[in-house]
Amino acid sequence: ARIVTLPGDGVGPEVIEAAVAVLEAVAERSGHTFEFEAHAIGGCAIDATGEPLPAATLEACKHADAVLLGAVGGPKWSDPHAPVRPEQGLLALRAALGVFANLRPLQVHPALASLSPLKNEKLKNVDVLFVRELTGGAYFGAKTRTIDTATDECKYTVAEVERVTRRAFELARDRRQQVTSVDKANVLETSRLWRSTVTRIAAEYPDVKLEHQLVDSMAMLLLTQPSRYDVIVTENLFGDILTDEAAALAGSLGLLPSASLGEGKVGLYEPIHGSAPDIAGQSVANPLGAILSAALLLRHSLGLDIEATTIEAAVSHVLTNGPHSRDIGGKASTGDMRDAVIKALD
Amino acid sequence: ARIVTLPGDGVGPEVIEAAVAVLEAVAERSGHTFEFEAHAIGGCAIDATGEPLPAATLEACKHADAVLLGAVGGPKWSDPHAPVRPEQGLLALRAALGVFANLRPLQVHPALASLSPLKNEKLKNVDVLFVRELTGGAYFGAKTRTIDTATDECKYTVAEVERVTRRAFELARDRRQQVTSVDKANVLETSRLWRSTVTRIAAEYPDVKLEHQLVDSMAMLLLTQPSRYDVIVTENLFGDILTDEAAALAGSLGLLPSASLGEGKVGLYEPIHGSAPDIAGQSVANPLGAILSAALLLRHSLGLDIEATTIEAAVSHVLTNGPHSRDIGGKASTGDMRDAVIKALD
Ligand SMILES: CC(C)[C@H](C(=O)O)[C@@H](O)C(=O)O
Ligand SMILES: CC(C)[C@H](C(=O)O)[C@@H](O)C(=O)O
Repeated sequence: ARIVTLPGDGVGPEVIEAAVAVLEAVAERSGHTFEFEAHAIGGCAIDATGEPLPAATLEACKHADAVLLGAVGGPKWSDPHAPVRPEQGLLALRAALGVFANLRPLQVHPALASLSPLKNEKLKNVDVLFVRELTGGAYFGAKTRTIDTATDECKYTVAEVERVTRRAFELARDRRQQVTSVDKANVLETSRLWRSTVTRIAAEYPDVKLEHQLVDSMAMLLLTQPSRYDVIVTENLFGDILTDEAAALAGSLGLLPSASLGEGKVGLYEPIHGSAPDIAGQSVANPLGAILSAALLLRHSLGLDIEATTIEAAVSHVLTNGPHSRDIGGKASTGDMRDAVIKALD
Repeated sequence: ARIVTLPGDGVGPEVIEAAVAVLEAVAERSGHTFEFEAHAIGGCAIDATGEPLPAATLEACKHADAVLLGAVGGPKWSDPHAPVRPEQGLLALRAALGVFANLRPLQVHPALASLSPLKNEKLKNVDVLFVRELTGGAYFGAKTRTIDTATDECKYTVAEVERVTRRAFELARDRRQQVTSVDKANVLETSRLWRSTVTRIAAEYPDVKLEHQLVDSMAMLLLTQPSRYDVIVTENLFGDILTDEAAALAGSLGLLPSASLGEGKVGLYEPIHGSAPDIAGQSVANPLGAILSAALLLRHSLGLDIEATTIEAAVSHVLTNGPHSRDIGGKASTGDMRDAVIKALD
């Protein structure tokens, strides 16, 4: 299998190096062969080519079996008014690969409950899978700007809502058969289209229970009753906000993975943490988010479920027994964490 | 002073009754005279007149010194595709009164810390004032709908951002001189206009420190470092989501007030809780959010700061010493809570 890696900026290269090492260790043990090919994206790509998503990078991604990305952005390129910005590379890549469903699983490992801002009793049995629509909405809508006005258009087609809804319901079937759809249907037209489409598609999945929540209530319920939710499906911008809110519950952003999937086989996998410029280059970044993203890659793009589960079990072992990186209260380096996961594979 | 009350739907009438009783008790003690005039809004107005904001209601509000609102909506009118919906009344009223700045103070009373989903150590010194832009953005932008597409336009003018920013900085001056502006400037054009406008206006307030946060990071920081923030200013939809998230920290929605202010003197005051149809008519709703909204009314529309502070102190006394309504772990009725506050005024 051909895996394109996009280390990107900040701590991206450090965590991707660790994830690749884990994948190589898995390959060795399982007899599979993974070929890795690294390409530039984000700020480093702007510096090298002037473009946040160089054509060579995009071509390589399109022909890969899967793409493993670190993070993009940093203070050097952070002016929101700059004509070319690192995030544009990521958004363009999502669009070009057609990865409309962004999966963000959230569980709180018992060993990290003390790091969570939430009370421990709230964290029990939290096991949520967010399915965020990733290639539509205000992120990709028409924008205008004059001296004294700016606009962003949020647009959704029925077909866009249908496909991400189906993905959410299919995922819910293999979980606890419960989908919560989040919108702002009391105010937004796109949310009303969202809600009626989700309701109609839900009828195709009589075995799965559907509930609707308004985004403001959901922001609250994620804190007051997080264990009530199974699959939460929502549009791009709401998903951006709610998944980051939920991520805070896990105690550290450093260990949360994501998978972005489309109809085709190429998936895009990335830890949800950013480029963390404050700790870049110090070998202290937690690579577990990238490593767990590699596990999702094995499961969703390569069909290697057993190998994915092996990695997840190894990560869980490390969380329980240590070592722990700085963000989760320890002193282990990125390399220590990588080595510990590899050791725990056996 | 003339105060229009809009009890609205669900528990609205119950909590407004309590707030009016407290205002009357304050009037008696202070020698001020308040005239109250009740009007219909929301679902009950739809039932009575076909309109969620009848002309008579709007006229009365425009000529009042202040408006005290309960809540709108309920299952009877909850179809998001109905041609006329209760929320439209509230949105139309906000627009007509030009109340562009929605103030939502958040403090966590020590007596309620045990009810908060957040760990107690996180709640120490939490004292945030949200200033949510209330009459612009996607709430009021152009909407389109065809069989297979829907759009919402989010639009902001420089002038709209300037006025709410100034309000935020002025409020910060009397607090801890710190403003956090929240946007999504790495993706949205309206957010880039927002950020550059806020940055420019901030220069007029050299005594106040400005920081920018992206909305997704803010959703996380509200949980991990809530005590770091003083005034948080943001656009309408982000404010809707973030203030509800923050409200969860307080342990109950039932006691959070809000004030919506414009350039004119008429302010709109409402508890942030909804119509709570599940408990409507049972006299168990917590009236403290409405009572604290009445305190904000005295302060911001009538200039009665001492009287406002007296009410706030009385509420704090009740929270410390009881009685407590159901939502905060007790058995007191709406009327018990009202009477306890009135008693604590002396
Ligand atoms: C970097 C940014 C454009 C991106 C987003 O908003 O989608 C990030 O926050 C994310 O959630 O992956
Ligand atoms: C009822 C609804 C339209 C309203 C809003 O979204 O503004 C409410 O959620 C609020 O926050 O006051």
